[in-house]
Amino acid sequence: MSALKKPQILRIAEVASSRLFTIQSVQLRFSNGVERVYERMKPAGREAVMILALEGDNVLMIEEFAVGIEGYELGFPKGLIDPGETPEQAAVRELKEEVGMGAEKLTSLGQVTMAPSYFSSRMHILVAENLYPEWLTGDEPEPLVIHRWPVSRLIDLLSHPQFQEARNISAMFLLREWLSKPSQASTLSEEVG
Amino acid sequence: MSALKKPQILRIAEVASSRLFTIQSVQLRFSNGVERVYERMKPAGREAVMILALEGDNVLMIEEFAVGIEGYELGFPKGLIDPGETPEQAAVRELKEEVGMGAEKLTSLGQVTMAPSYFSSRMHILVAENLYPEWLTGDEPEPLVIHRWPVSRLIDLLSHPQFQEARNISAMFLLREWLSKPSQASTLSEEVG
Repeated sequence: MSALKKPQILRIAEVASSRLFTIQSVQLRFSNGVERVYERMKPAGREAVMILALEGDNVLMIEEFAVGIEGYELGFPKGLIDPGETPEQAAVRELKEEVGMGAEKLTSLGQVTMAPSYFSSRMHILVAENLYPEWLTGDEPEPLVIHRWPVSRLIDLLSHPQFQEARNISAMFLLREWLSKPSQASTLSEEVG
Repeated sequence: MSALKKPQILRIAEVASSRLFTIQSVQLRFSNGVERVYERMKPAGREAVMILALEGDNVLMIEEFAVGIEGYELGFPKGLIDPGETPEQAAVRELKEEVGMGAEKLTSLGQVTMAPSYFSSRMHILVAENLYPEWLTGDEPEPLVIHRWPVSRLIDLLSHPQFQEARNISAMFLLREWLSKPSQASTLSEEVG
């Protein structure tokens, strides 16, 4: 898959920005000589985590308002990695902020991107186990509703009308694959304090 | 899951815009009285399609430059639905533009959203079968590299370094589920001309 020669970036310019977003135009010359100007979000350099927190036979989920769709979304806890944090540390902090739980054992299931024609950001998907109760104050405008979903019925999430987000769906399937592997218990994992 | 009372939208304002993107600020008052201002992309009203085109024992994939990550991404053909098109019509058109194939049989596997805190857009995921060769001119700057991936090895895509996008991963797993069902052949489907 390396037959393709990357286009050359001729020019990057900021074309609009708001409190949260900066939009860039990027002028490219493809290896066949064709030039195009694309727009993308300025790479933020911050990655994110999504946490599949296992508590007994359940995975912890939250219900949170999503202003893009103007409705409540059912999904797994997630958030940005703060400067200086590892993905594992961010996962534990976000869990404490969103569901009031820490975790002693974190296992990475990989990373996902989202619409890479426009965004550079990556999200790390981690399984959290050996949970213990501990709240940290987050920045949620209202308390998140916490749900416990049986891992034996993960696939049923696909028919839940509030469970439609691609990273959540990917994480659900990745968890299901991981749980189905007999070697799961011996997967390389990382203990965090 | 309907215990939550939606926040009230107090004000929506455009705060930045470019050729492609319009950013809105949205002032919300949650049911507990807390007010917040969020930013989101202005809902575009256009949905998208992603096509899982089956040709014998393979699914068709393309390799395309993604300027957000400045690299080539391996994924399934996709594109916006044009005004007046059904998702099935858009799927057939995109297939013709991107891989030079039409399809006589389309089956919907559902819809996914992407980061609904910021975006409203939905992507329809469709299986395309009974392919026939037909090219339509698309707007690609360089010819897309077409790959044929064995459906028996779909899960191996997870270890491919260029296959990391959450909607592609969701679509791969949805296809794998669909193919594993004995009732697959009798699934309600729609014939398009």
